[in-house]
Amino acid sequence: MEGVDYLTDERKTAQFDIVAMKVAWAGSRETLEVSDRMAKLVANDPVFEKFSRPMLGRKELFKNTLRKAAYAWKLIVSLGLSEEEAKWLRLYIDEPAFTDLHWGMFIPAIEGQGTEEQKQKWLPLAKKMQIIGCYAQTELGHGSNVQGLETTATFDPQTDEFVLHSPTLTSSKWWPGGLGKVSTHAIVYARLIVGGQFHGVHGFIVQLRSLEDHSPVDGITVGDIGLKFGNGAYNTMDNGVLRFDHVRIPRNQMLMRVSQVTKEGEIMQSDVPRQLIYGTMVYVRQTIVADASKALSRAVCIATRYSAVRRQFGSRNGGPETQVIDYKTQQNRLFPLLASAYAFRFVGEWLKWLYMDVKQRLAANDFSTLPEAHACTAGLKSLTTTATADGIEECRKLCGGHGYLVSSGLPELFAVYIPACTYEGDNVVLLLQVARFLVKTVSELGHKKPVGTTAYMGRAAGLLQTNCAVQTAEEWLNPGAIVEAFEARAARMAVGIAQRLAKFENPEQGFAELAADLVEASVAHCQLIVVSKFIEKLQQQDIRGKGVRESLEVLCYVYALFTLHKHQGDFLATGYLSPKQASLANDQLRTLYSKVRPNAVALVDSFSYTDHYLGSILGRYDGNVYPKLYEAAWEDPLNDSDVADGFHQYVQPMLKQKLLLSSAKL
Amino acid sequence: MEGVDYLTDERKTAQFDIVAMKVAWAGSRETLEVSDRMAKLVANDPVFEKFSRPMLGRKELFKNTLRKAAYAWKLIVSLGLSEEEAKWLRLYIDEPAFTDLHWGMFIPAIEGQGTEEQKQKWLPLAKKMQIIGCYAQTELGHGSNVQGLETTATFDPQTDEFVLHSPTLTSSKWWPGGLGKVSTHAIVYARLIVGGQFHGVHGFIVQLRSLEDHSPVDGITVGDIGLKFGNGAYNTMDNGVLRFDHVRIPRNQMLMRVSQVTKEGEIMQSDVPRQLIYGTMVYVRQTIVADASKALSRAVCIATRYSAVRRQFGSRNGGPETQVIDYKTQQNRLFPLLASAYAFRFVGEWLKWLYMDVKQRLAANDFSTLPEAHACTAGLKSLTTTATADGIEECRKLCGGHGYLVSSGLPELFAVYIPACTYEGDNVVLLLQVARFLVKTVSELGHKKPVGTTAYMGRAAGLLQTNCAVQTAEEWLNPGAIVEAFEARAARMAVGIAQRLAKFENPEQGFAELAADLVEASVAHCQLIVVSKFIEKLQQQDIRGKGVRESLEVLCYVYALFTLHKHQGDFLATGYLSPKQASLANDQLRTLYSKVRPNAVALVDSFSYTDHYLGSILGRYDGNVYPKLYEAAWEDPLNDSDVADGFHQYVQPMLKQKLLLSSAKL
Repeated sequence: MEGVDYLTDERKTAQFDIVAMKVAWAGSRETLEVSDRMAKLVANDPVFEKFSRPMLGRKELFKNTLRKAAYAWKLIVSLGLSEEEAKWLRLYIDEPAFTDLHWGMFIPAIEGQGTEEQKQKWLPLAKKMQIIGCYAQTELGHGSNVQGLETTATFDPQTDEFVLHSPTLTSSKWWPGGLGKVSTHAIVYARLIVGGQFHGVHGFIVQLRSLEDHSPVDGITVGDIGLKFGNGAYNTMDNGVLRFDHVRIPRNQMLMRVSQVTKEGEIMQSDVPRQLIYGTMVYVRQTIVADASKALSRAVCIATRYSAVRRQFGSRNGGPETQVIDYKTQQNRLFPLLASAYAFRFVGEWLKWLYMDVKQRLAANDFSTLPEAHACTAGLKSLTTTATADGIEECRKLCGGHGYLVSSGLPELFAVYIPACTYEGDNVVLLLQVARFLVKTVSELGHKKPVGTTAYMGRAAGLLQTNCAVQTAEEWLNPGAIVEAFEARAARMAVGIAQRLAKFENPEQGFAELAADLVEASVAHCQLIVVSKFIEKLQQQDIRGKGVRESLEVLCYVYALFTLHKHQGDFLATGYLSPKQASLANDQLRTLYSKVRPNAVALVDSFSYTDHYLGSILGRYDGNVYPKLYEAAWEDPLNDSDVADGFHQYVQPMLKQKLLLSSAKL
Repeated sequence: MEGVDYLTDERKTAQFDIVAMKVAWAGSRETLEVSDRMAKLVANDPVFEKFSRPMLGRKELFKNTLRKAAYAWKLIVSLGLSEEEAKWLRLYIDEPAFTDLHWGMFIPAIEGQGTEEQKQKWLPLAKKMQIIGCYAQTELGHGSNVQGLETTATFDPQTDEFVLHSPTLTSSKWWPGGLGKVSTHAIVYARLIVGGQFHGVHGFIVQLRSLEDHSPVDGITVGDIGLKFGNGAYNTMDNGVLRFDHVRIPRNQMLMRVSQVTKEGEIMQSDVPRQLIYGTMVYVRQTIVADASKALSRAVCIATRYSAVRRQFGSRNGGPETQVIDYKTQQNRLFPLLASAYAFRFVGEWLKWLYMDVKQRLAANDFSTLPEAHACTAGLKSLTTTATADGIEECRKLCGGHGYLVSSGLPELFAVYIPACTYEGDNVVLLLQVARFLVKTVSELGHKKPVGTTAYMGRAAGLLQTNCAVQTAEEWLNPGAIVEAFEARAARMAVGIAQRLAKFENPEQGFAELAADLVEASVAHCQLIVVSKFIEKLQQQDIRGKGVRESLEVLCYVYALFTLHKHQGDFLATGYLSPKQASLANDQLRTLYSKVRPNAVALVDSFSYTDHYLGSILGRYDGNVYPKLYEAAWEDPLNDSDVADGFHQYVQPMLKQKLLLSSAKL
């Protein structure tokens, strides 16, 4: 029935103030207000309808994205939305588009790497969308290894121009979003060649298409790279291919904030610190962590609500069956993901603070915390995106068969999310970078005090000797005991692998040989960060409202003890825990699940997602799942007619045993 | 370049006879011959082209499937293919279709549950495809819990008919493949009601559509349930919805081999053992395990070949970069999956033997091994399908960004495979069934000798006391040491959980409370089965050819030691292994990877898959990846024109700053 809330009973059992929890999730009352207002603006506007998206063919799908993007821009301008409001608006439109790259990569690249003159020329055009830009770095043959890019930009002093060229097939730019069909301009990364010498990879502003008729500029081949994973999903984006055949651009279109090429072909370095680039990476990766918590929380919201609606087995005397959310196997898969969504939210919030801190230090020429901040964001990007990708798929499985239907929203959410594991640093490559930093930190322990998230390494000697003191399951409900356990595990693994590396004559060979173990040590370090930032958050004053802190504490313990159980091999192998202590942690985990249970639906309501944003029949706020699933089925084009296209031509002759005689060309 | 084999060097390093390995994988020389012949028949016939499949809209896609199915039937009849040949043909066509359910469920259900009379009437019609049938069990509200199905079949003695009815919305049949648009008949599972009394769930043969014009029979509402996960993928199947409004069928259309309803409304039981149904489950699940090895091996084949083609980092003096397959992090993710593909292949082969054994025993009224065989197949279904679903996605990630392109073949392989984790028993529900059996086995140890795959439990006392004796990494290359480790872990976990259960006053409450731990004990038991069947296979005489046994031994150790490392928490927590011994196993694993490396490409060549079946540009036999990716991009409909549809309408006004003035309705 319409208008009935089938989850009322679930909402009644919540033990906390829901509005206060929404504020805690959003970060502030103001953010919640803006976010909710933009979410409703999108949800109530039929232009942003997205239910039919997965059914559209590529051309129609893409055209519809252009329509939404133009309409959104019209709204932004006509309503005079602030930059923050515009960001929320684009988020809730929930459709990858060229605008993501224009605002998220093209403009920031000019802001970060352009000279004042370049910024004055290009930014006003870009910010008014008189030009549309993308970020063309990745090539067909090179992703992770930026120094291996093959596109060349050769300086021609005769004409004061750079000549951009794609010397091989694998040098074709490949993947940049917005490149294929929309962008008029791109920041192109290419090997700078001056006087026959290679001078590193630099960015160049290149016009790709005519501003008159949008046709590609002479010497440029550009197009879309074709279909990607999933229905709808990332196929709204024109990820592109781009080749240059000796394309000339003026010298002043090389981004020259850090390095300059003079008219005479001299290479000059400005006094702008090269470390700036790490500041940008910290920024981009903290947004990825924030996005991880959004994506995971959406999946968890869907799976939690549907697990409360869905019943299976356990009927007594013909009464209703058991809600699947009451099964411990369901709780053991779902609640740690719910806890992870909150954990990632708070570690993302902290990363935002970290970026501000890094920025201020950079401005003061203080680079001391940069390596640590860089390692930390690289590791958290890897940890949270991997967990989110896996978590979305786990949520889909938790919805049983119906999770496989596109109308559950989960297939598209998965397909659109998973590139996050690869872009902006492949997750395994990033963990190896973290490992390199950890090993370096260990090797310098004698003479350099580790900072920030590696500060615990300064206490490594103690952490290597003291073992866990927990004797009862209750004693695991202690932030001190938990942090020490994660610190001891991480420190022991880092020190252990550093010792094994030291036995190799050639350190690089050792690093290559032990790569898989190095990755495990990095994961341990990153999990410690997530756990301790969650605990720190709980100690902050800004958590207000009845029951909010208590409910979050339960989630924090769930995250920590589930992680401990999942990786108990590490904790046992390093000797910090006894099997008995690990088992007590697992016992406590079950108790915690019972504490999450009455709050589960309210905890996902606290994300404050509209049904439009969730895009899932299974995750509907009102729980009215089955009638809506049934209705939605009939929307499929196959149901346009009782008898399917092709039946008379192909199946009827089979049934009538006339197939072999049939003249129908099959 | 066409015609060049870019993987020649990889193939030269193989240390085994490739044809002999193909025979080992196929099971016999004869099977290899039939399989290869059918694969080529499909690959060389343009009707079976599948590259464009993911780009088709639903109607066009479905129509194309009907065309392929009709054409395949024409081939089968006109070439006089045997049933075995037809099965291989359908496999290599590689497109889910109504025929899968017709041959795989509808016909077997009649064969297994029909009386002689029913078989004589229905099987000839079905086998000539004069009728097309499906298997309608699952409902909108009930999947796992078959006893909770709501559809009713009420006997009306007045007319000697059953009246089929869907009393609620959730009683709608939902999911059955082939039901939506094609099937003329269905086996419908419904609650039998005679004289107002419920007599269990039974199967009924029901006509759904007219054999003349294919319109639904009066009282029947039938249609497709809508889009499912992925491009192409399972959307070639018309999974359906079905409702009955008091539809009457003759009494003799209830499947009556086991239970009969007489004209007078009496319920009679035949002397056919009810355990027959478990025999069928053993059969169906062993085919699922066999399919798991096929799906995983396809993904591994793609990822292995592309990992040999792809290079990244590590260039020295401008020379070529390192092949990514040479990185230990890549090997540590890829080679265990390669080993799993082989492990699942051999355990699947053994399950085929087990099914034959069960069948013979059933015929002789020997039910003694049935519970063990049932638990074993349930567990292996769960273990192999979960590992395969995860493994396909891992292979996609191992291909870097390009794995996200549909032309890599991996997105569709994933999307089409994952339902296997849910159908024929949700994987977690199945592991709980296994756990129940394990706990029962433990509780009966005093007076009942455990059989088959649980025979090791008979030595539980010893396994609980003896600890591992391994002292060097080399000592892990010993089948005895490995099997004992897996037996000890499984036995200790099963006994441990049984002891904890015994402390609960109410056993069912204990079972519910400890469900997550019970699942872990089941996984340990199932991994033991896979490891020991792999080892047994290596001891068989039928493995012939230079280097074949040796190469398979390496894979077997990789599977075992990787599994041991991944679950080292279990091995350490149960006290069987010391941290030092676990670490030695991990050291040995790295050495094993170096032994797999030269054979990797040849090991995936041994699956004998055509490029058509693989359906992946990244996995091409000749390794000619980049030119083909580049070519394929231009096939996308978005590249039909230089300027995309919608550009002039939506983007141009934005660039020209005319959006707000524009009269274009957005």
